[in-house]
Amino acid sequence: MTFQLYGNLGSGNVLKVKYLADALGLPFTLHEIASRSGATQTPEFLKLNPAGQMPVVVLEDGRPLAQSNAILRYFAQGTRFLPNNRYEAAKVDEWLFWEQYSHEPTVAVARARVVYDGQKVSELDPSLVARANKALDLMEGALAGRSFLVGDSLTIADIALLAYTRQAPQAGFDLSTRPAILQWIAGCENELGLPAHTAENRGIGHG
Amino acid sequence: MTFQLYGNLGSGNVLKVKYLADALGLPFTLHEIASRSGATQTPEFLKLNPAGQMPVVVLEDGRPLAQSNAILRYFAQGTRFLPNNRYEAAKVDEWLFWEQYSHEPTVAVARARVVYDGQKVSELDPSLVARANKALDLMEGALAGRSFLVGDSLTIADIALLAYTRQAPQAGFDLSTRPAILQWIAGCENELGLPAHTAENRGIGHG
Repeated sequence: MTFQLYGNLGSGNVLKVKYLADALGLPFTLHEIASRSGATQTPEFLKLNPAGQMPVVVLEDGRPLAQSNAILRYFAQGTRFLPNNRYEAAKVDEWLFWEQYSHEPTVAVARARVVYDGQKVSELDPSLVARANKALDLMEGALAGRSFLVGDSLTIADIALLAYTRQAPQAGFDLSTRPAILQWIAGCENELGLPAHTAENRGIGHG
Repeated sequence: MTFQLYGNLGSGNVLKVKYLADALGLPFTLHEIASRSGATQTPEFLKLNPAGQMPVVVLEDGRPLAQSNAILRYFAQGTRFLPNNRYEAAKVDEWLFWEQYSHEPTVAVARARVVYDGQKVSELDPSLVARANKALDLMEGALAGRSFLVGDSLTIADIALLAYTRQAPQAGFDLSTRPAILQWIAGCENELGLPAHTAENRGIGHG
């Protein structure tokens, strides 16, 4: 099985697909799409994903699939990254939906405003910062005393949350006050063979 | 199998769980939680769902599950409402994630501002209205020439989108200009045994 990946690895939503594909040893071809270039709004791209968002994957048989977490679920099926146990699988889903509703629209949006729009951390919308901190605090609470979000091993719930949580310091969010998250990041990096999150990346800022 | 449902049927996210449970003949006990009452922020409720959102279900063995679409996936597993085909199941997931990212935060939020906050339709944030209309237009395009969102029969993708789409006219969104959506609503109502969406409900407004 191989696939085509349309997107930009600067996007956490795209990065999660790469994390899983690499962990599974699934080869893919990356079709680079510049962020904020309008390239996701062309008629060609909209045929793959009418929502005009990356990532999109195109499977070997030519059929497209969009929505990063739907892609994770598709590739993880039957692997160690998605529990067989029905309740545990549902808890993975709970995290995946929470990520897209409460984490990505806050943590990732704040980061995009800084990284892509050039906003200063100190000028970010305080309500956005508060909601992002609330999401990070929820993760910190959930990870206290645990290695991974669901069960005893890394699942796509961790993969889905990892990308933007690692990038959170770029928008001034302080992970150094969130030891459970830092330990979890290190554990995920270890499992996925990623380079270690550096101290400089941890940032200081909104707390 | 029976379960406890914590939530308010005025919320589309809660209503979707009821739609599926009723269709499957799953008995449940509804624990009514008033919207905007703070009842989802009590220590007791946060133990069930640290995100402080409804719905939450508590399964027969006492274990909780949150996130409406995770709940739909859990109960739909192995039933006619979730395709066996791996690609079709992934397309269902694509719609579920799209719903929580692009439809609920626009269509449902606009409706909540009118229904709960007493905002006038004409005073809604134009950017919110534009994004909601874009979501409804995407559905209209996807449903043209089809009876249901994925495959040939009703799935939880339809159930997830039905609740807030039916309520869209309450926030002034005009479904009368979206014939594919209207026909799809009627088809879903028929499949689910719901009372027909009335002409008065269709509303006129933002187009």
